[in-house]
Amino acid sequence: MPAPGDFEVVETAIPTPREGQVLVRNSFISVDPYMRGRMNDQKSYVPPFQLGETLTGGAVGEVVVSQSPNHKPGDFVFSNFGWRQWYVADAAEVQHIDPSLGPIQSYLGALGMTGLTAYAGLLEVAELKGGERVFVSAASGAVGAIVCQIAKAKGCYVVGSVGSDEKAAYLKNETGIDRTINYKTCEAPQDLTQAVAAAFPEGIDVYFDNVGGAHLQAAIANMRPFGRIAACGMISQYNATEPTPGPNNLVNIVGMRLTLRGFIVGDHLALRLDFLRDMAQWVKSGKMKWRETIASGIDKAPEAFIGLFKGEHIGKMLVQVG
Amino acid sequence: MPAPGDFEVVETAIPTPREGQVLVRNSFISVDPYMRGRMNDQKSYVPPFQLGETLTGGAVGEVVVSQSPNHKPGDFVFSNFGWRQWYVADAAEVQHIDPSLGPIQSYLGALGMTGLTAYAGLLEVAELKGGERVFVSAASGAVGAIVCQIAKAKGCYVVGSVGSDEKAAYLKNETGIDRTINYKTCEAPQDLTQAVAAAFPEGIDVYFDNVGGAHLQAAIANMRPFGRIAACGMISQYNATEPTPGPNNLVNIVGMRLTLRGFIVGDHLALRLDFLRDMAQWVKSGKMKWRETIASGIDKAPEAFIGLFKGEHIGKMLVQVG
Repeated sequence: MPAPGDFEVVETAIPTPREGQVLVRNSFISVDPYMRGRMNDQKSYVPPFQLGETLTGGAVGEVVVSQSPNHKPGDFVFSNFGWRQWYVADAAEVQHIDPSLGPIQSYLGALGMTGLTAYAGLLEVAELKGGERVFVSAASGAVGAIVCQIAKAKGCYVVGSVGSDEKAAYLKNETGIDRTINYKTCEAPQDLTQAVAAAFPEGIDVYFDNVGGAHLQAAIANMRPFGRIAACGMISQYNATEPTPGPNNLVNIVGMRLTLRGFIVGDHLALRLDFLRDMAQWVKSGKMKWRETIASGIDKAPEAFIGLFKGEHIGKMLVQVG
Repeated sequence: MPAPGDFEVVETAIPTPREGQVLVRNSFISVDPYMRGRMNDQKSYVPPFQLGETLTGGAVGEVVVSQSPNHKPGDFVFSNFGWRQWYVADAAEVQHIDPSLGPIQSYLGALGMTGLTAYAGLLEVAELKGGERVFVSAASGAVGAIVCQIAKAKGCYVVGSVGSDEKAAYLKNETGIDRTINYKTCEAPQDLTQAVAAAFPEGIDVYFDNVGGAHLQAAIANMRPFGRIAACGMISQYNATEPTPGPNNLVNIVGMRLTLRGFIVGDHLALRLDFLRDMAQWVKSGKMKWRETIASGIDKAPEAFIGLFKGEHIGKMLVQVG
């Protein structure tokens, strides 16, 4: 588990933008579970963070100085420059965002990569069809809560697993899913399997996995034939100091003809326009809402990040830095 | 593990075929690992065997009496009537086989469901592309040896895992695969992972899984991005008396965007004509050979079946009953 002492806030001079560059003041930065993987020294889909270098990741801010015809002061932009209050970048490294669709920080969450992760995982990776039975873990989290609402918008039966009664109440009241499971009331893995069985008398068509471990085992035990599992993340494993055994029922994958498919959002950027079009419509019709948990001050970023693994937040975790 | 005492040979009168029926004398019956699953009292893609009833499964035999215009005495037919020397069936329950393509018993193996399992798993489930890097477990078994040769025919780099040096020599000499691993020389799961890593310096594109367990873990540790795993069987798990933990590295499925997909051949029968066309061509060009291990006498069927889990055979295990 990362500790606040692993991080350092450093002051440095702000460079002057050259021709073709912009100076941006960040408003919000994103902290995400996938960043934990970048803290391991291993090959993965993104290279590991380097000690002593600034953490990169999603951020939204305002252009203050522009030496590019494509941007003007006051424009809001998204970038991957991460955990900084200010930065200078080539114009092509920042993307305009449209504040009329939602507050600018929602481009780090529901309207950004977080929302696209839910959309791509459910519709493209798991090939969700209307009316199917959908199970979502970490269902009150940034991705999970969007998954729940997309599945509801598609006319599905949706059950979400969460870690507190407060989160369960939020999901029931604000996203309209059908049932919730508080997994912390399940002492043994088989209790969770039974709770999932009780919530899905006809079995699960699609499981959107954010956590792995006992949840994955419980889902596999309850999948319908030809069920699909979109493996978005396995947060239960990220801080493990030793490899932990996987589900004891993988043999079901054969007999039930299940598909377990891992994905990362970066492979699905071609869906972005469809995603924004659908999200705009769902927001307008009241089918899509989201919550944010916002920490204030760049010095609070480490705590906010570490908090992701404690599961005390609801919705997207953000840090307001300007 | 099943024991010979769990089985009984019973004599009964042969019924007389009525209008539209045939009387068949079986020549060979098939014993297959999937039958072990049917000995558990649980819901699966085929219903469990019932105590005191004859085991069903693939069989080939000769029509002796026909009351149907579709069959004449001397015709060779395939059926699913299984472990019997004689049976009466409706004409529609038996299928003609063509002895010019191969000996009739090969319709229980390379030219039958066994071969189609290899073909469908590799080409349809794992979406194999020419030139990819392919890992096969239980590679000298009935399905595995066909998988190896289809992959070689598609120009792939192929490594097979087997349980003895004799099987390794057979595979190298008769199927022309690139490398073999004798997994019994690997004491710990991580030794197998290292042996697989050494055999695949560039990683694995497709893993054809017949065994599960440590092999699945070793494959997952060595998959290339977007790699596919066709889960055909998990024989290492079939006789477990307690659930056994799964691979400890499933989190790789996310970061490497892997697909693990279970299948059973019965969902892929639409490929049958393509399969027979391709097999005929591969047989003719010398790219497809197979071995059989044949037990003699229906009283030897239990031993032959139990032998599947001891791994002492090479190729397809058959019982000659007539």
